[in-house]
Amino acid sequence: MATGSQPPPERLRERFRIKNILYRNALAEFVGTGLLILIGLGLHMVHVLSKEKINTHFQAQVGWGFAVAFPVYVTYHISGGQLNPSLSAALFTLGKINMKEFVVYVIAQIAGGFVGTVGVYFLYLDQLKHFQPNERSVSGLVKHADCFIPFPSAHVSNITCFFDALVGTALLVFFIIAILDKRNRVPTGIHPLLFGFVVTMTAMAYGMNAGVPINPAKDIGPRILVGMLYGNQVFSYHSYYWLVTLFGSLLGGISGAWFYLFTLGMHVPELPIVERELTEESKKLLPREA
Amino acid sequence: MATGSQPPPERLRERFRIKNILYRNALAEFVGTGLLILIGLGLHMVHVLSKEKINTHFQAQVGWGFAVAFPVYVTYHISGGQLNPSLSAALFTLGKINMKEFVVYVIAQIAGGFVGTVGVYFLYLDQLKHFQPNERSVSGLVKHADCFIPFPSAHVSNITCFFDALVGTALLVFFIIAILDKRNRVPTGIHPLLFGFVVTMTAMAYGMNAGVPINPAKDIGPRILVGMLYGNQVFSYHSYYWLVTLFGSLLGGISGAWFYLFTLGMHVPELPIVERELTEESKKLLPREA
Amino acid sequence: MATGSQPPPERLRERFRIKNILYRNALAEFVGTGLLILIGLGLHMVHVLSKEKINTHFQAQVGWGFAVAFPVYVTYHISGGQLNPSLSAALFTLGKINMKEFVVYVIAQIAGGFVGTVGVYFLYLDQLKHFQPNERSVSGLVKHADCFIPFPSAHVSNITCFFDALVGTALLVFFIIAILDKRNRVPTGIHPLLFGFVVTMTAMAYGMNAGVPINPAKDIGPRILVGMLYGNQVFSYHSYYWLVTLFGSLLGGISGAWFYLFTLGMHVPELPIVERELTEESKKLLPREA
Amino acid sequence: MATGSQPPPERLRERFRIKNILYRNALAEFVGTGLLILIGLGLHMVHVLSKEKINTHFQAQVGWGFAVAFPVYVTYHISGGQLNPSLSAALFTLGKINMKEFVVYVIAQIAGGFVGTVGVYFLYLDQLKHFQPNERSVSGLVKHADCFIPFPSAHVSNITCFFDALVGTALLVFFIIAILDKRNRVPTGIHPLLFGFVVTMTAMAYGMNAGVPINPAKDIGPRILVGMLYGNQVFSYHSYYWLVTLFGSLLGGISGAWFYLFTLGMHVPELPIVERELTEESKKLLPREA
Repeated sequence: MATGSQPPPERLRERFRIKNILYRNALAEFVGTGLLILIGLGLHMVHVLSKEKINTHFQAQVGWGFAVAFPVYVTYHISGGQLNPSLSAALFTLGKINMKEFVVYVIAQIAGGFVGTVGVYFLYLDQLKHFQPNERSVSGLVKHADCFIPFPSAHVSNITCFFDALVGTALLVFFIIAILDKRNRVPTGIHPLLFGFVVTMTAMAYGMNAGVPINPAKDIGPRILVGMLYGNQVFSYHSYYWLVTLFGSLLGGISGAWFYLFTLGMHVPELPIVERELTEESKKLLPREA
Repeated sequence: MATGSQPPPERLRERFRIKNILYRNALAEFVGTGLLILIGLGLHMVHVLSKEKINTHFQAQVGWGFAVAFPVYVTYHISGGQLNPSLSAALFTLGKINMKEFVVYVIAQIAGGFVGTVGVYFLYLDQLKHFQPNERSVSGLVKHADCFIPFPSAHVSNITCFFDALVGTALLVFFIIAILDKRNRVPTGIHPLLFGFVVTMTAMAYGMNAGVPINPAKDIGPRILVGMLYGNQVFSYHSYYWLVTLFGSLLGGISGAWFYLFTLGMHVPELPIVERELTEESKKLLPREA
Repeated sequence: MATGSQPPPERLRERFRIKNILYRNALAEFVGTGLLILIGLGLHMVHVLSKEKINTHFQAQVGWGFAVAFPVYVTYHISGGQLNPSLSAALFTLGKINMKEFVVYVIAQIAGGFVGTVGVYFLYLDQLKHFQPNERSVSGLVKHADCFIPFPSAHVSNITCFFDALVGTALLVFFIIAILDKRNRVPTGIHPLLFGFVVTMTAMAYGMNAGVPINPAKDIGPRILVGMLYGNQVFSYHSYYWLVTLFGSLLGGISGAWFYLFTLGMHVPELPIVERELTEESKKLLPREA
Repeated sequence: MATGSQPPPERLRERFRIKNILYRNALAEFVGTGLLILIGLGLHMVHVLSKEKINTHFQAQVGWGFAVAFPVYVTYHISGGQLNPSLSAALFTLGKINMKEFVVYVIAQIAGGFVGTVGVYFLYLDQLKHFQPNERSVSGLVKHADCFIPFPSAHVSNITCFFDALVGTALLVFFIIAILDKRNRVPTGIHPLLFGFVVTMTAMAYGMNAGVPINPAKDIGPRILVGMLYGNQVFSYHSYYWLVTLFGSLLGGISGAWFYLFTLGMHVPELPIVERELTEESKKLLPREA
């Protein structure tokens, strides 16, 4: 592999490598978000279909953490492993990506989320047919929709849903931006794992009101398929709470990033010169400089 | 980002960076402890409000670990990420911070804890209104207070509460001081994660008597709000056990640090010269040298 | 240890070290897979024998993760710690191992799996005699077989079993190949731990249909012993689903590896020259160059 | 701290540092094993006293992992953090410690285990008085003893107990010796954490027969106190199974270490010269060279 003729994968790489960085990153965002949903929605479905017997709430929280961590590991040095429109929105306001990149990435993320949902749907079709929702089903009117998307309880107002999405996403993006800040010296090799743990933590702390609406790609993709399968009630349910959480999440992502910058990021001591050069590689997160 | 025009965050940094190190560190302790409570109390509330269905004891223990780990990650290179008056007290007796710093940090920590509590209160207000405490509620007389603070069982004496707080905090601070000791060569990049695991471990081993009273900021902030909401019984309950655990915790923090020094810290072999220089950066923990 | 007389293990090493790399690697695959089964099947048995009381589904999922991680840690620098015929098949199609190595490793893996199963059987013989399968037993007709191998539910078709095995193994191998790709810069020292977490994640997301058939060595070894103990129904059950998942898993492993290469692997930016040399040691994964 | 007058801890260190390496290491083994029991037995007690409500089996398994990991972190560079007579026995047969060291360390470990048990006893005395053992108590005849030590079920023979202890300890020591082997290139900074995960894994796979008898110090210390409190039945119960597991564990530790050496350790490829020198520091594990 090091000397002489190259192995097949290296030869293919020379021929098929995508040179356009925007397209390459969009592909990474599409594949990464698709995997995130294929894994995360898969384990959520086991959670609901087994009536919390095989996958409890704890497993769902830890599982979503892994479902974020590993897709980020494999896209981190390509597109930065954003995989979340709210994070991309924050990076756009920070000047890390431009408007064109933002729009393309978000489309790729939502498309990936939809394709991942279709995959999960077919893998659990036998189980869905067999499943009888019981009294725990929150949205009784929308048959089987609980298997795809979480719904808020009736006694939770949309104002609470909005702030729940805002604070949850703000926490997520606050910690991601802080961990990416090279002055905080968090080893790059464990960034994706820590991002996953942050997701788990946020789901533990703010998972009760509206089902952790901290990633719009995780919501829109499945919701479109559910709408196609079970009708538009999935959009109008609970006074269009899904739009409320969507805006809450986008605003939360932007708020979290800037709250970090003003309260902590601007005040972290500068790195010693020697370290600053060593961590120049952390700029690889920024897609345009890849 | 490295050459040419700087991105917005870097330009803002040059203008708004706080030069006074004491104020800067106090801000970090305030924000860090606020986040710690916003996360930790949030998941504790899900634990109680869902009657241990969504968040079990295990999740609460693991969640508190993350609730400590991530706020420490983002404040570690500013104020050292103390976020706990008992740890600050130990660092003061070790000569790592002076009296002025100690007082300012503790005030910042308690203020952060209170603001975090207010945030949690509003995010779970809909759920609190809907909540019916059941027979498991320890402190039946204090309505809904269990959602904010844990209470000891009736059959646990205040002497046990005192030693529970002392031993729990001693364990926590013992391991934190040991991990910070550069002679033990624990990689800096995983310190905050290990601190979080120590919290989880302590909660597992000593969470039954008095609800893990190992961080006074986690107790005082919420208790003030609960007192304002539900009356002063929250202070007088169980013969003022909260003051007992408060003193136990502060004494435990100091004891744990010095117990480490006398039994192990003084006897760890010196680092080889080359390594000693490489780990000079670990001094960054000490706020005054930042 | 470094100077003067060598300790006993070092002297033995000089005398007994196996020089033939193929034999050495086959021994590592045999021992590693044996340990994987000794641990993983042991905890699965506790799961079933205690009727999910001592080991819940969550513990089984986390435990299988460790059961993969640690055997990989100890064989990683010998044979690459493949321990899974589907992964070996993928490495073969990638040109990392040749046909002879592939055949020898798979035989070693299955033999290790069988010997590990025998060990578990004897350690839990007292408990197996005492065990009364209850109504939860899926395959009622095959006495005690649930203790050794998972069975699909009656309402799950073999087509679903095939795609369940294919997608589950594809996810596993996709992430393993991606983590091994030196351009993704995942620190070598945590590779085995991450492989274990990928197993846990896959079990969470796709553990409901057919019991996570992502490693044929984990299936064939135990199935042979169960066939010897309880009769051939264990093979014919559910229209020979085990053959269906076997082919699904092998095809999934190959698909996962190549899907990674085409969607992400070919497009990851090249390493800077200095890093490329530092990570040359990652080639140690490739057995033939050891 | 680096320049000018030294902080108090550094000045104390110069005066009180123990120069005799054997005594120093014995103190570390005593303190480390004491902490291991203070934490591990504490969480086991919560497991039993809360009737598996606060600490489930899973928490006990994970908790024991941490209870090993952190005491090893703080003693690793002093005595190697052995904290287990079966591991010390293995290190003795490998020529890493001599007979005198072995005897002194084991005495220190058992003494630490006893002192830790006394601490746990007093911290949970209120709870022990309040506790009513229910029908789940295995050893009905020995009042409250289940809070301190696990007992095998009646239907498990002593032969099974012997092999359970042997295989469990062999797994533990096999992986510890393998991780310590510098040729396997496991980063030193995560060794203690991995040792803890190995304990969790072993408890998951072999925790059903005899309660994970893989560390005699964890058994003898508590058993002595229980004998003093509740009578000698704790020794004679189940035909003196505790002696059976004691010998099984010691033999298992030695077997695990040598099994590793013969099957894998002797065959791991040598490190490149440059790396070999960098990892010379891993020799610090060996107490006599500290």
